Amino acid sequence: MPAVCGGAAVFKTGRNGKITDRGIYRMIEIKLKAKEERRLQAGHWWVFSNEIDGLDTSVEPGTLVRVLNHEGKQVGIGYFNPHSLISVRLLMKGEGELPEDFVFENLDNAYSYRKEIGVRKYGRMCYGEADNMPGLVIDRYGDVLVIDVLTAGMEKLKPAITKAVQKIFKPKGIYYKNDSSFRALEGLTNTPEIIGDVPETVEIEENKVKYLVPLRGGQKTGFYFDQRENREFLKPYFKDKLVLDLYCYIGSFGITAALAGASQVWGCDSSAAAVECAQKNAALNGVSDSVVFHRDDAERLLSALKKGELPDQPDIVLLDPPAFVKSRKALPQAVGLYVKLVKMALEGIKAGGYLAFSTCSHHISRELFVDIIRQGVSKSGRKAVLVELRGQAKDHPVLIGMPETEYLHFALVQLR
Amino acid sequence: MPAVCGGAAVFKTGRNGKITDRGIYRMIEIKLKAKEERRLQAGHWWVFSNEIDGLDTSVEPGTLVRVLNHEGKQVGIGYFNPHSLISVRLLMKGEGELPEDFVFENLDNAYSYRKEIGVRKYGRMCYGEADNMPGLVIDRYGDVLVIDVLTAGMEKLKPAITKAVQKIFKPKGIYYKNDSSFRALEGLTNTPEIIGDVPETVEIEENKVKYLVPLRGGQKTGFYFDQRENREFLKPYFKDKLVLDLYCYIGSFGITAALAGASQVWGCDSSAAAVECAQKNAALNGVSDSVVFHRDDAERLLSALKKGELPDQPDIVLLDPPAFVKSRKALPQAVGLYVKLVKMALEGIKAGGYLAFSTCSHHISRELFVDIIRQGVSKSGRKAVLVELRGQAKDHPVLIGMPETEYLHFALVQLR
Repeated sequence: MPAVCGGAAVFKTGRNGKITDRGIYRMIEIKLKAKEERRLQAGHWWVFSNEIDGLDTSVEPGTLVRVLNHEGKQVGIGYFNPHSLISVRLLMKGEGELPEDFVFENLDNAYSYRKEIGVRKYGRMCYGEADNMPGLVIDRYGDVLVIDVLTAGMEKLKPAITKAVQKIFKPKGIYYKNDSSFRALEGLTNTPEIIGDVPETVEIEENKVKYLVPLRGGQKTGFYFDQRENREFLKPYFKDKLVLDLYCYIGSFGITAALAGASQVWGCDSSAAAVECAQKNAALNGVSDSVVFHRDDAERLLSALKKGELPDQPDIVLLDPPAFVKSRKALPQAVGLYVKLVKMALEGIKAGGYLAFSTCSHHISRELFVDIIRQGVSKSGRKAVLVELRGQAKDHPVLIGMPETEYLHFALVQLR
Repeated sequence: MPAVCGGAAVFKTGRNGKITDRGIYRMIEIKLKAKEERRLQAGHWWVFSNEIDGLDTSVEPGTLVRVLNHEGKQVGIGYFNPHSLISVRLLMKGEGELPEDFVFENLDNAYSYRKEIGVRKYGRMCYGEADNMPGLVIDRYGDVLVIDVLTAGMEKLKPAITKAVQKIFKPKGIYYKNDSSFRALEGLTNTPEIIGDVPETVEIEENKVKYLVPLRGGQKTGFYFDQRENREFLKPYFKDKLVLDLYCYIGSFGITAALAGASQVWGCDSSAAAVECAQKNAALNGVSDSVVFHRDDAERLLSALKKGELPDQPDIVLLDPPAFVKSRKALPQAVGLYVKLVKMALEGIKAGGYLAFSTCSHHISRELFVDIIRQGVSKSGRKAVLVELRGQAKDHPVLIGMPETEYLHFALVQLR
């Protein structure tokens, strides 16, 4: 018996972003194999293809479905993609129906939470599963929203999403960036779309620091809001310090350091465009005198530091490398590289100094992250304490029971 | 061949807390079994009894020793207790000698770090291994120092410690509380000692909140400095909220909540003395109108909440239970109890509300802590996000490579 039964996909979006013509009895049903609802009960929100009792590949990707356990009892409602390993992403759990207005309700609730944590004009307004909108990322840059739609299910909801965010945020422009590699896994092409007025660059403010952010050409949606609170956290440590900012991107850590009183900041990035933007940002904040950004490779710079080729040893090294690990297979090699960077950085820092280190891949668990630091410390032969272990900013909340929603780790380490 | 060789214990303390008569060639030597230095190289700082090649039980507990690998190369210097499972706690690693003044130097460095992180008058001034002083805890309550000596090695250094802290902090009083159960494992009796003027109660300030702290009768050294930053972190969440503070002790979380604008705070503790002190602290901060502390059992109160016997549902529950788990054997039972408390608390909190949960046993790893929350959320049937995961305050730094120095976990969870 096929698990997918019932009528055809009837998911349509009507006026005001409301879901219409859903009809309780007409929604497609997916039946799980025996006992496969247990992971969901333990806290997870995805159904994998091997957990489904029969898989109807003729169903249109993104169709809304009712998920039943093997006995036929509803365990939740989600959207379905028969061509993805992650077959269903749940929008709700348990019995009952989705509210007609669930797109608006979820995004409005998500914004209420941001207002409560003090994030209004600039920040992540929707963070996928944690905000009941799996596959949807919305970053707000003042009057402009940059949106990444990662799944076929969310792609189908795009009209409702557009209407909801127009009502909630009244943006001048919406930029569906849609350039994530996840889209290919869902059978989606990269189809950017601009609604209204979206400039090449916007100016934002974070922790009382201003930034010009390249919306179209930049990394991610343009800015790493996820490190906002870690930058703020570091401020008291910078006074009169020589700071080395590796992987500086558009200068956010380095400029924060300069404004917090660092005597000098040296920053580097392998991207010429990023370095140019970082320099502009230093000027924008009036710290061009104490900050030097230049194009360079972080590892090369750490080697130069070790050889004594830099004018002085830094008091603080900021080490925020990209996600070297995009898949579980690449993990051992990536771990080796992180350990090497930590070791080299620790070897170069003055006694009593600090290393601020981050990773941003959900393949690196918090425990592995701590172990990477331990290995780096051990290989450096130095003694060090963990001053504080931190994570992603609060507008990127971790959904409890879904480790996949946790990806950013941050540690401040002091050399003894 | 016995591992302990060389002359008799020659460890004496001379004037100004200096170590004298040490003599490079006269220090007792301990030889490790083959390859047993590997754990030390990976970052640890203890030698266990089964790692020593021959164990001379005639050596006086607390004697300073040189630790050699199986090939006779020095791997560090520490102090030795032949009657403890933890035979050696290292004071330094690698070759070379301890500085003559190492007690003063370590405590002075430890204080320099505290000044850098903004902890001066009130806080932990020495945190054992992390500050190169294994087995020593020093808490500063303004003019009074409360000290816990946990090992025979530190007991031997007591005269040097007293002199060093007198020089560094110029205290009016020093209270060697020495009431930890760890002392028995080291063959030490509980021998409190008072030097100078130590009152029954002192007034301290933390995060702009005042507290009367019972030095002699209270828990730990009197106050939980380790939650200082977590209390500060919570302040923005309390405005106009109804807060339930379970395990309130002397009221620090609850009073912080009231001063941060909570509409009402209900606190309870099973200790009548703690509740009485909490009430005094509420009065001291002028918040007696909005705070009620009373003697009660946390679990009973959560049951009453579930039955609807309390006037209202709280917006925020503060759940900071004692370390239910004092040994690894007691872990499963303790985990069950924590899960039950988390579940009950989550069931009682208003939609959109928060749970601030802590554990304070090093047997509960960070990952287990997160899993306890996951289990509690799952059993409660509610959806929740992890807003932030935090640890012990920065004056209790974690020594990298020694998980034993990490014991406090704190999470802010929001119900969706």
